[in-house]
Amino acid sequence: MEFTAQQIAMFLHGEVIGDPNAKVNDLAKIEEGQPGKLSFLSNPKYTEYLYSTQSSIVLIDASIEIDAARTYNPTLVKVADARAAMGLLLNMVQEALNPRKKGIEQPAFIAEGVQVPADAYVGAFAYLAKGVTIGEGSQIYPQVYLGDNVKIGKNCLIYSGVKIYHDCVIGDNCILHSGCVIGADGFGFAPADGQLQKISQIGNVILEGDNEIGANTCIDRAVMGHTVVGRGTKMDNMVQIGHNVVMGQNNIFCAQVGVAGTTKIGDWNTFAGQVGVAGQLSIGSQNIFGAQSGIPGNIKDKQVLMGTPVIPAKEWARQAVYLKHLPDMQKDINELKKQK
Amino acid sequence: MEFTAQQIAMFLHGEVIGDPNAKVNDLAKIEEGQPGKLSFLSNPKYTEYLYSTQSSIVLIDASIEIDAARTYNPTLVKVADARAAMGLLLNMVQEALNPRKKGIEQPAFIAEGVQVPADAYVGAFAYLAKGVTIGEGSQIYPQVYLGDNVKIGKNCLIYSGVKIYHDCVIGDNCILHSGCVIGADGFGFAPADGQLQKISQIGNVILEGDNEIGANTCIDRAVMGHTVVGRGTKMDNMVQIGHNVVMGQNNIFCAQVGVAGTTKIGDWNTFAGQVGVAGQLSIGSQNIFGAQSGIPGNIKDKQVLMGTPVIPAKEWARQAVYLKHLPDMQKDINELKKQK
Amino acid sequence: MEFTAQQIAMFLHGEVIGDPNAKVNDLAKIEEGQPGKLSFLSNPKYTEYLYSTQSSIVLIDASIEIDAARTYNPTLVKVADARAAMGLLLNMVQEALNPRKKGIEQPAFIAEGVQVPADAYVGAFAYLAKGVTIGEGSQIYPQVYLGDNVKIGKNCLIYSGVKIYHDCVIGDNCILHSGCVIGADGFGFAPADGQLQKISQIGNVILEGDNEIGANTCIDRAVMGHTVVGRGTKMDNMVQIGHNVVMGQNNIFCAQVGVAGTTKIGDWNTFAGQVGVAGQLSIGSQNIFGAQSGIPGNIKDKQVLMGTPVIPAKEWARQAVYLKHLPDMQKDINELKKQK
Repeated sequence: MEFTAQQIAMFLHGEVIGDPNAKVNDLAKIEEGQPGKLSFLSNPKYTEYLYSTQSSIVLIDASIEIDAARTYNPTLVKVADARAAMGLLLNMVQEALNPRKKGIEQPAFIAEGVQVPADAYVGAFAYLAKGVTIGEGSQIYPQVYLGDNVKIGKNCLIYSGVKIYHDCVIGDNCILHSGCVIGADGFGFAPADGQLQKISQIGNVILEGDNEIGANTCIDRAVMGHTVVGRGTKMDNMVQIGHNVVMGQNNIFCAQVGVAGTTKIGDWNTFAGQVGVAGQLSIGSQNIFGAQSGIPGNIKDKQVLMGTPVIPAKEWARQAVYLKHLPDMQKDINELKKQK
Repeated sequence: MEFTAQQIAMFLHGEVIGDPNAKVNDLAKIEEGQPGKLSFLSNPKYTEYLYSTQSSIVLIDASIEIDAARTYNPTLVKVADARAAMGLLLNMVQEALNPRKKGIEQPAFIAEGVQVPADAYVGAFAYLAKGVTIGEGSQIYPQVYLGDNVKIGKNCLIYSGVKIYHDCVIGDNCILHSGCVIGADGFGFAPADGQLQKISQIGNVILEGDNEIGANTCIDRAVMGHTVVGRGTKMDNMVQIGHNVVMGQNNIFCAQVGVAGTTKIGDWNTFAGQVGVAGQLSIGSQNIFGAQSGIPGNIKDKQVLMGTPVIPAKEWARQAVYLKHLPDMQKDINELKKQK
Repeated sequence: MEFTAQQIAMFLHGEVIGDPNAKVNDLAKIEEGQPGKLSFLSNPKYTEYLYSTQSSIVLIDASIEIDAARTYNPTLVKVADARAAMGLLLNMVQEALNPRKKGIEQPAFIAEGVQVPADAYVGAFAYLAKGVTIGEGSQIYPQVYLGDNVKIGKNCLIYSGVKIYHDCVIGDNCILHSGCVIGADGFGFAPADGQLQKISQIGNVILEGDNEIGANTCIDRAVMGHTVVGRGTKMDNMVQIGHNVVMGQNNIFCAQVGVAGTTKIGDWNTFAGQVGVAGQLSIGSQNIFGAQSGIPGNIKDKQVLMGTPVIPAKEWARQAVYLKHLPDMQKDINELKKQK
């Protein structure tokens, strides 16, 4: 994979400033540039690196002002939006490094009657149980398990070792990373006769589409009805979603977040790493929950919260300062009592 | 799967009030009822929904008082204990949706000399190493790994992708969900010669029986001797149990709890989500640990604890209130000092 | 597996005191000793157990003083360093219980052109994609997935169900436990056109060597360049390492720790269980972070820290005490205001 400045400019509708034959075969941050690498410059804060970088080509935003009095080494490819252009380039490289596959590798286990579209991929040691449906263009990597009647939409990427229990539904354009488990039983027991009796979990999980689910994340099936992940919601690794959680669109769950059962969540919330959400709650939309915070009650909209239990992030920061004053406060009180 | 009110009443020893030929093919909460669905009504708080639900059949507790002056739509099946009857129905539906399997799918890897009982199931791509034993009626799903000499009891359900390292013992009636790892090495190192030397972990893990282990949960093997999960103890997803932890019966571990090595735990404790327990401790019985709490020392019995480090939950709630007063307290102290 | 005191003494260069034909076939703690078991005594605090243990052989440190006036049951094997000798014994038993394997089990998927060294092992249902390289003596257990161009060094132990995405590099002498996922996409999205657009992740993960990675741990690939785990660093189960994290040597990550993207970490740090580290930070060397602590900013060297946000552990312990005084402090302030 080697590209010239000319080729990149044509692909990105940009303008070459310098040698159109300058070549790159890899990407690097501008501050870590090396010959043969392409960097990008979009944030004016990093402009200074332009004059020192060793990268051969720099993809530069039209808004960046270049000091004509100073010299620099790389050939420039100037584009209207360097950040978006870089995204396109990354996608192109990604396709080259990890190309879409087609066909069925052997041995795979495909139950009688299951149809695999001609442009889909099923890797070796994958298991497709009876009643499974696979959408066009979907990639089922090796060692994936799809239980009875699982539906996979179009253009999904189901990485190696994903396990999806029976009757779950994965919408179009979903990416599921290795080791995630969709539709294991919700955690429900009732004490009876001196032991914990299992409550059967007969619902399922629905991913509405355009979802990315991180490695080793778990989304439990509903006791009845559906656990729902709304369109466009993204989850990082090792997130736990309890049974009957229903959430809207475009939420972001960072790694190791846990949401207990039956909680309802709106749209466009961000849950930072290791946040815990109690069960049976109602969470609004457009909230930001700081890392490790704990949410014990209902939450409205558009708040920035932190701590366990969560309070407004600004108040939380102030508390952390006051906590440091506690020994002095105690001393002052003791002094005041003596002087009385 | 379609049932009449008459059939359900016979199965549950109930009484039909209304049309014995009313048919259902699914379950729904009473407040979300639809034609063709069965709901249940056990808690008097929800009685009002009886008069508005669209469900075709409602399984109703004998204790619920019905207002004879009002009309309602569904056929009723009246039973002595609607909650218990619902559990039986859920189990029946569960069996229908996810039936017990029999036989050995190909290709599976079954080491020479390993016997699979006639009524057991081994799915494709499962790996049974030498010395493995499988109890009657157990279901080994596709892509499971059972290392040398692993013993699986009777009527176990080992879901796809479970990994059990050599010499571990799983008792009767255990359910292990996808991706859980039983018997990986405990985390033990000793600094020596300027690096961290691994301490071999030669013990095993024993699940005593009637255990449910969540998806992607990890229970580490003992350095010597046994890591023990007592009979009836249940774990949700992504729980971490360190080496040489020994625990009693009927404990509940919610998702993402971590217990460090060599800690001893009694019976009937509840660990809410994301709780952390330090190593080498002794935890009594019948305690409840609130979500995200951190346990740094020994704990006796029958306490309700919260926070890091844990304190009585009531005290913790009061602290959270006082924390909000800190700015005012500081102001008061400053004022008092001035006035002196 | 049965050994005499004579054989053990020869293997460990020790001296037999008692019956050289005493036999053992298992190990036990000295306080839980039984006939046929070997125990060890290195810490003088446990000396008293020597006089009551039922173990047949005790491996005893030369520094332990024995009371000649008292009787004891076991045969002794006296060695210069009982702790180190015990480590050697554990390793020997470990090799016996879980011996290194050789050869390729069928069916395995090995892409055309991939070479497996004669002394390496590839288990059934393992998947080796095109361009994979396997070092001498490495063990690839059943159901492992190695994506395109993955490089595995020498003498690695890759347990069942490990998933390594394309282009990742595993150095020599690494142990990867079941279910860990190396090289899944970093978590990167940019809001655009009213949704979250995925940012392709085209870098990789490099483990430098001598690393142990716990069960179900996830280490994400870099957006560009490398996520790096320095030589000798060890991770317990369910640790999350974000994209572009770069860390040095001999760090210890206990279970359920999470490190967000692009953070740099030095050498010889210890992160206790459930610690969270924010992204884009710089962490020095030789720090100890207490369990559940949260690290929001840069950290220098050699500190012992605790809490969220982290503060010196001693200060944190003092705060916990002052928090309990808050109700009294409030009462005192109210009283002082009244008396004024």
